[in-house]
Amino acid sequence: MAVELPFARWIEDNQDALIQRLREAVEIPSVSGDASYRPHVHRMGQWLNDELVKLGAEIRSIPMGPQELEGQTLDLPPVLIGSLGKDPKKRTILLYGHYDVQPALLSDGWKHEPFKLTHDKDTDRLYGRGSSDDKGPILGWLNVIQAHKETGTDLPVNLKFCFEGMEESGSEGLEELVIKEAKGEFADVDAVCISDNYWLGTSSPCLTYGLRGLSYFSCSISGPGADLHSGVFGAVVHEPMTDLFALFSKLVTPQGEILIPGINEKVAPLTAEERKLYEVIDITLADLESAIGGKVIISDDKAEALMARMRYPSLSIHGIEGAFSTPGAKTVIPASVKGKFSIRLVPDLEPEEVGKLVEKYLKDEFAKLNSKNTLKVEMLHGGKPWVTSIEHWNFKAATAATEKVWGKTPDFTREGGSIPITLTFAEALNKNVMLLPMGRGDDGAHSQGFRASAGSLITNEKLDKDNFIKGSVTLGLYLHEVPAAAAAAEAQ
Amino acid sequence: MAVELPFARWIEDNQDALIQRLREAVEIPSVSGDASYRPHVHRMGQWLNDELVKLGAEIRSIPMGPQELEGQTLDLPPVLIGSLGKDPKKRTILLYGHYDVQPALLSDGWKHEPFKLTHDKDTDRLYGRGSSDDKGPILGWLNVIQAHKETGTDLPVNLKFCFEGMEESGSEGLEELVIKEAKGEFADVDAVCISDNYWLGTSSPCLTYGLRGLSYFSCSISGPGADLHSGVFGAVVHEPMTDLFALFSKLVTPQGEILIPGINEKVAPLTAEERKLYEVIDITLADLESAIGGKVIISDDKAEALMARMRYPSLSIHGIEGAFSTPGAKTVIPASVKGKFSIRLVPDLEPEEVGKLVEKYLKDEFAKLNSKNTLKVEMLHGGKPWVTSIEHWNFKAATAATEKVWGKTPDFTREGGSIPITLTFAEALNKNVMLLPMGRGDDGAHSQGFRASAGSLITNEKLDKDNFIKGSVTLGLYLHEVPAAAAAAEAQ
Repeated sequence: MAVELPFARWIEDNQDALIQRLREAVEIPSVSGDASYRPHVHRMGQWLNDELVKLGAEIRSIPMGPQELEGQTLDLPPVLIGSLGKDPKKRTILLYGHYDVQPALLSDGWKHEPFKLTHDKDTDRLYGRGSSDDKGPILGWLNVIQAHKETGTDLPVNLKFCFEGMEESGSEGLEELVIKEAKGEFADVDAVCISDNYWLGTSSPCLTYGLRGLSYFSCSISGPGADLHSGVFGAVVHEPMTDLFALFSKLVTPQGEILIPGINEKVAPLTAEERKLYEVIDITLADLESAIGGKVIISDDKAEALMARMRYPSLSIHGIEGAFSTPGAKTVIPASVKGKFSIRLVPDLEPEEVGKLVEKYLKDEFAKLNSKNTLKVEMLHGGKPWVTSIEHWNFKAATAATEKVWGKTPDFTREGGSIPITLTFAEALNKNVMLLPMGRGDDGAHSQGFRASAGSLITNEKLDKDNFIKGSVTLGLYLHEVPAAAAAAEAQ
Repeated sequence: MAVELPFARWIEDNQDALIQRLREAVEIPSVSGDASYRPHVHRMGQWLNDELVKLGAEIRSIPMGPQELEGQTLDLPPVLIGSLGKDPKKRTILLYGHYDVQPALLSDGWKHEPFKLTHDKDTDRLYGRGSSDDKGPILGWLNVIQAHKETGTDLPVNLKFCFEGMEESGSEGLEELVIKEAKGEFADVDAVCISDNYWLGTSSPCLTYGLRGLSYFSCSISGPGADLHSGVFGAVVHEPMTDLFALFSKLVTPQGEILIPGINEKVAPLTAEERKLYEVIDITLADLESAIGGKVIISDDKAEALMARMRYPSLSIHGIEGAFSTPGAKTVIPASVKGKFSIRLVPDLEPEEVGKLVEKYLKDEFAKLNSKNTLKVEMLHGGKPWVTSIEHWNFKAATAATEKVWGKTPDFTREGGSIPITLTFAEALNKNVMLLPMGRGDDGAHSQGFRASAGSLITNEKLDKDNFIKGSVTLGLYLHEVPAAAAAAEAQ
């Protein structure tokens, strides 16, 4: 290992014990979305609390109140809030992670028992639910703290913790708690580090400085009082489906260009330097095609394809509620249909403003159809985009650490999707937030299915042993780089 | 009653007994689409066979072979083929009807037990599954034959019968049988009368001389290897849904105009006389709006609205298979979607020819989208349109009969939907086919849901007592008018 600091050497020398601790964590099936697993989530919260306390941290286990789930009233798992070190001369870094996991069953197609950690010696990967999302990264922090303790090394920063047990199920109550603690436990925080996403690909580490926001729309068109038979009323009535297709064909071109006036105009202009950030990202069009499972990328330019994902808005039509949707051939004229689409937002697009633009545009275009049907537009939900500056010392520290551990400059990425807690921290604390991932793009970490196409079964979540060990060292070294980076920024 | 012929008087005088026979028929739950009801369908076939034989008919009960249904091997219900009278000096009329019914359960929302005939004295309507579709009409023929027998009246025509027990479930094997019997039992048939549809509205009888055909299409667009997350791949890939909306928006305008070149050009031109046929039909735009359940008729002209239904093609988009179709907000990019639409056909549009026009058009338009996705067009099924001449003596006879019984000229209608057996008779026998309905437009006869909007629950099938009794007289009188009408036609 390139890093010769004692804490780093200790991590490397004790990796078997550290993997053993990850094994313990994975073996607690802390599935937050299933009522029958709830006791395990509480058990996992208690386990993490005990580990942190054992390492010297002061932890408050905050009860989050009751929750109705599957007809039962359950206690929400606690949020662990706390600190380690209160030296006023040191910077204070807030660490976020979650100790709950997605559901997993062997019968879903797992190669190994999902709640046992299985070390595949051929690939050196650690299989198990939560290995990458997000127990691995949380335990990375435990590894760092223990390594400092065991080697008698002083932690170079004060730490604050915010570890929740409901991330996979809506983070109930967390936003309110963060806002409250912004003036309490988190008042002295200088920067935030979230380790809960993934490298873009499989070979280069990355730091993530932006997330797209979202405006989700339901567009209802109705006319007849009930579904009609197309033999009897085809060409007699204004058909809601015909109107919907006419209307939605005006939303976006097959080349992905959004046609709603006012949207593209609000996107921050691209600078030549910013474009370079995408050009140097260590991924190829072939990598992306492999993840997509087809040669259907709009642009033939890698940087353009990445920018489409990360720094431009997008509009996707998801489906229709109320129309014929099963196999076969039904000759129905649906009486009322709801078309669903969403727009991914980037600065400076705000959900509310986008909502108004969309509603006005749809109404104007619908009026042009001269239909006697009725249109109703509804924004189902909205979330703001988030982008921060990679020039901040928080990123400089993590960049330096990554270079030392991995021997290469990290990719600077923005995620196409959203991680709402990021925005909450940024807005409530008004401090720099950075996403420093541990796992790789093919970890199969999430259950949303979009990594299934990358050739790795979503059900076979795993973490490279290398990512766990060197990743832990990266987290620790980042903390070591903070004082110098922050001082340099202050000196400017 | 205006008709003083003895058979007509006998029907009126014996209506309680005739309703009692209808009651017997309705009480046999001959649901052809449910394996567990199959013995009842066979029982119903036997019952009808016995009644016909009792009245002097010669009947062959044709076994139709085995059928796989719900994992069981069942015997298909027989088709009853036969005759009554073989006088070479008389014309021969082939009667078609079906003795099976749609499913019905009290728990579906019926006011009365569906397989009991309930006489609602307030409205004088006979509630029960099959009352209108199609046991009432079949028993109408029994009434006519019995009335002639009881009053010693000679039947003015020879009769042939074709009564099936699978009409509601695809008429399996019937087409082949009719083609075979065209040179056998049906060789001497001069004209066909089908009583298995309905008046257009509720106050005027009608004769039906046309049916639209159908070409049903599934249009598959695929690209990514699996569903993608719109946050990650929105604006990166060519989205199949975007392509589908762009493509289907080119099919038909919100005013119902089909945009596929070659379709409208093939429609037989409208003559001034033909237009008059629609102008005099006894129905108003308000009646149609009431059936539709909304004020969404494209044309403000009644004749135009009726022609849209009866004599012009129509194109309806039914739905999408493979897209998000449930309530809520899912941010999926569907990887592969199948859009379904169909075109109702009128002369001179043939399904095969339409299939070629549609496929070429869709491929040409898809090419213009410059998408890297893949398009596949499939015609799921096709049926030819059918139109015959109301100047034929078969229609002249039924017109005269209707005028005498109901005191008004019948509406001459074409149905927007299809009744495939009509075309089979027309093509196999090469004789005039006429649809002479007994029931009213609001009988709630069918289970396809399109009459639900007419304010009558589809589950509450019924037949007006008046339609049963006067309707039976109309059927009989039609037979009486045949000789003179046919002779007049021959004399021309």
